Amino acid sequence: MNSEEITKNHALNLEDIYLGQKFFSDAYPIPKAEMVDFARKYDPQIFHTDENKAKDTFFQGIAASGWYTASISMKLLVNSLPIIGGLIGAGCEVNWPRPTRENDILRLETEVIAIRPSKSKPDRGIVSIQCLTYNQNDEIVQRLISKIVVFKKNMARNQKI
Amino acid sequence: MNSEEITKNHALNLEDIYLGQKFFSDAYPIPKAEMVDFARKYDPQIFHTDENKAKDTFFQGIAASGWYTASISMKLLVNSLPIIGGLIGAGCEVNWPRPTRENDILRLETEVIAIRPSKSKPDRGIVSIQCLTYNQNDEIVQRLISKIVVFKKNMARNQKI
Repeated sequence: MNSEEITKNHALNLEDIYLGQKFFSDAYPIPKAEMVDFARKYDPQIFHTDENKAKDTFFQGIAASGWYTASISMKLLVNSLPIIGGLIGAGCEVNWPRPTRENDILRLETEVIAIRPSKSKPDRGIVSIQCLTYNQNDEIVQRLISKIVVFKKNMARNQKI
Repeated sequence: MNSEEITKNHALNLEDIYLGQKFFSDAYPIPKAEMVDFARKYDPQIFHTDENKAKDTFFQGIAASGWYTASISMKLLVNSLPIIGGLIGAGCEVNWPRPTRENDILRLETEVIAIRPSKSKPDRGIVSIQCLTYNQNDEIVQRLISKIVVFKKNMARNQKI
């Protein structure tokens, strides 16, 4: 069952998750205007907002904010990993080996790397996923390891925070 | 010297950084429309986008995407921690003990928790900072530990990636 079939058929319970399971997103071409607009709002530094001035900076040209890469990666994750009750992140580690650039085309590959039943709450587990965001040259622009809360079958509704 | 004075006076070199140094942002009231618009674009799940349906979810009401909290925190960091050559993040750990809600007022407190000279590049160091994002009730909505690249005096210009 590939991730497209999963998306169309049903969202996943904890019982559906297994170690090494993989999910693949569609490709997303980065709109330059959106990339720069994001930086103007949330990360206003010249290497993210000013094409000319960016040339003389660390990045040698305009580069996306890491938080923009993270946000696009989240969009790709929502569209490729359907979890019953939604994707609820408890925390993560993230790094950006190289920046996203204008006109890059990003895609996400997600792998289940750990599954741990909750000790205190028997209706759920904590699933660790590694999400690698690639550009069109198959270079990694973001490596994210995230812990998400996944409920057992018929347990996702009306679970409180 | 408080962070406001630093912002007005000069950006910091590696030599200006010391362990335990703190920086404080202004307060930022969360515009509900911006919070929901962010989620529609980057994290389209009902507990982030639909006020009514969110009531029956894990979050028991509409909650910001964690990536929105991260993006607002970055905006507050840019405005409170002036580093020569800009804030360049090498990687971070982030978690969200509770969600940001509509009409929350967020502020950021940043502390220098480690300073390490680069082994391979004598013109720079890696500075670890802990950034705590608080709401108006002094509850932590985000805990971020980030490693940033900081150049020595007169070394930030024309440094390449």
